[in-house]
Amino acid sequence: MRVVVTGAAGFIGSNLVDRLLAEGHTVVGVDNFSTGLRYFLEPALGNPQFRLVTGDILDQPTLLSAMQDSEFVFHLAANADVRFGADHPTRDFEQNARGTANVLEAMRLSHVPAIAFASTGSVYGEATVFPTPEDHPFPVQTSLYAASKLAAEGLIEAYAETFAIRGYIFRFVSVLGERYTHGHVIDFFRQLTEHPESLEVLGNGKQRKSYMYVHDCIDAILTVLDRSKEKINMFNLGTDEYCEVNDSIGWISSELGCAPRIRYTGGERGWIGDNPFIFLDCARIRALGWRPKLTVREAVVQTVRYLRDNIHQINRT
Amino acid sequence: MRVVVTGAAGFIGSNLVDRLLAEGHTVVGVDNFSTGLRYFLEPALGNPQFRLVTGDILDQPTLLSAMQDSEFVFHLAANADVRFGADHPTRDFEQNARGTANVLEAMRLSHVPAIAFASTGSVYGEATVFPTPEDHPFPVQTSLYAASKLAAEGLIEAYAETFAIRGYIFRFVSVLGERYTHGHVIDFFRQLTEHPESLEVLGNGKQRKSYMYVHDCIDAILTVLDRSKEKINMFNLGTDEYCEVNDSIGWISSELGCAPRIRYTGGERGWIGDNPFIFLDCARIRALGWRPKLTVREAVVQTVRYLRDNIHQINRT
Repeated sequence: MRVVVTGAAGFIGSNLVDRLLAEGHTVVGVDNFSTGLRYFLEPALGNPQFRLVTGDILDQPTLLSAMQDSEFVFHLAANADVRFGADHPTRDFEQNARGTANVLEAMRLSHVPAIAFASTGSVYGEATVFPTPEDHPFPVQTSLYAASKLAAEGLIEAYAETFAIRGYIFRFVSVLGERYTHGHVIDFFRQLTEHPESLEVLGNGKQRKSYMYVHDCIDAILTVLDRSKEKINMFNLGTDEYCEVNDSIGWISSELGCAPRIRYTGGERGWIGDNPFIFLDCARIRALGWRPKLTVREAVVQTVRYLRDNIHQINRT
Repeated sequence: MRVVVTGAAGFIGSNLVDRLLAEGHTVVGVDNFSTGLRYFLEPALGNPQFRLVTGDILDQPTLLSAMQDSEFVFHLAANADVRFGADHPTRDFEQNARGTANVLEAMRLSHVPAIAFASTGSVYGEATVFPTPEDHPFPVQTSLYAASKLAAEGLIEAYAETFAIRGYIFRFVSVLGERYTHGHVIDFFRQLTEHPESLEVLGNGKQRKSYMYVHDCIDAILTVLDRSKEKINMFNLGTDEYCEVNDSIGWISSELGCAPRIRYTGGERGWIGDNPFIFLDCARIRALGWRPKLTVREAVVQTVRYLRDNIHQINRT
């Protein structure tokens, strides 16, 4: 199958590209390299089944060039810099909502019949039910990032209804693993490799975080694509466990062989809009037979090992 | 108070402008006159407390000029042409979602602390609970219009959380009354004044429709503004009854003194994306003491009388 991956040079995107190529698909990757890294695409760029389109998803000609004769779009391109939403109030909406509107229009014009979209568990806002099911009560949005992802979800649903496009929407917890580039694990890793004796932690360290391993995430997506064929297919993706930031500090420190003195900046949240708790009910995806292979702890450790081996390339690019 | 009304020359907007002026407020109206009518602003334009800014909400200088020194924004400007969403796939998103993003940015830059937004009961998609409460299970969007309104709701919520703006979100049923300009009542009115002996009806006539009278709607909005002061104030607005399209045909025909032969185009929906049933649980607004003054039937009859007296001016402009 000929497929398009937007955000192909990103963390999840580049792993997905490698997997799709390994399964024999022809892949067109789109990336503007605003946060994606060419380093992550090095394996793909050596494969004749891969074509890279360098450009922004807000540029319609870029998208139309990528979509020609394609059968499926994995839409992962996004501003994923959740934490600094308030510093750039329009960025989330432009990149994530308007970007998705553009992708859908390009699909419609190019007759691409199906899309998988990387949404987020943070669309549940201040959830009132844990673990949170897909049909949680209509939530109130608490961050520009989540609001922009919710806007994109709604657009995909409306296009599915109006233009007979099939939509797969995945509400992720945070993802860890090879090519992970932002979030608290890399912040802590950087701090502890610079000064192993001390660590500054935003908030009180008691923030509860759900994570899943990137290859488990990709397995889950491909399982759903194979087994669920509704007009709109909506799935939470996560593990059945969570950790506190403090737990992850222990695992990271242990892996790096250090015992830092910890300074907490205080407060229940790391930053404005930081959701204190995302913990998803994943019964729906599990009913399709998917199981995560790595625990949260194993995913954190795997990530630290990857960073140890690759941080120079990540920092350099 | 100095307030901004976007969509000031529209159906609800112009009625709201008149009401706000009558209550002694200073009003800046913004309209691009794409669907708004200067005819509707004639009373306001004679009032020195009213200023008209002609321009599009997608144009930031227009908004900044309007917002200066204002304390409140009633954001009603929208593409309300729900029925033809599929013919203009990007219009709803541009006007309703991106337009709202623009309004919020202008508010942030101008330090306007509060917004009331006209959303729609169609954000509940194919609701599973009737009457539908505000905390209905997380819905799937079924029209480009509703998706664009949901996107705007999420943006307002995120701005409220991030920048301490107060947000009022109103999910309307369809509104009838003076200055009503689109929807099936005017379609039927036009047909029956042209050819009183026959009427073509989209769908099977059994579509159930909720309506409220425009002055009841404005009363409800002003009641909420007075009595609810949360960061986000979310209210369904409707009556506790609904009718079938066939009921309204009877009322309209009776008012016009005709007995048309009816031809149904067939099917359960008038058009793709037409929601077969919106019926809102309005317990939350009723708990604040608001009650509608007109029944659905009275609102339909009032609308027909208005159209009989004003259709020439509406058609001419």
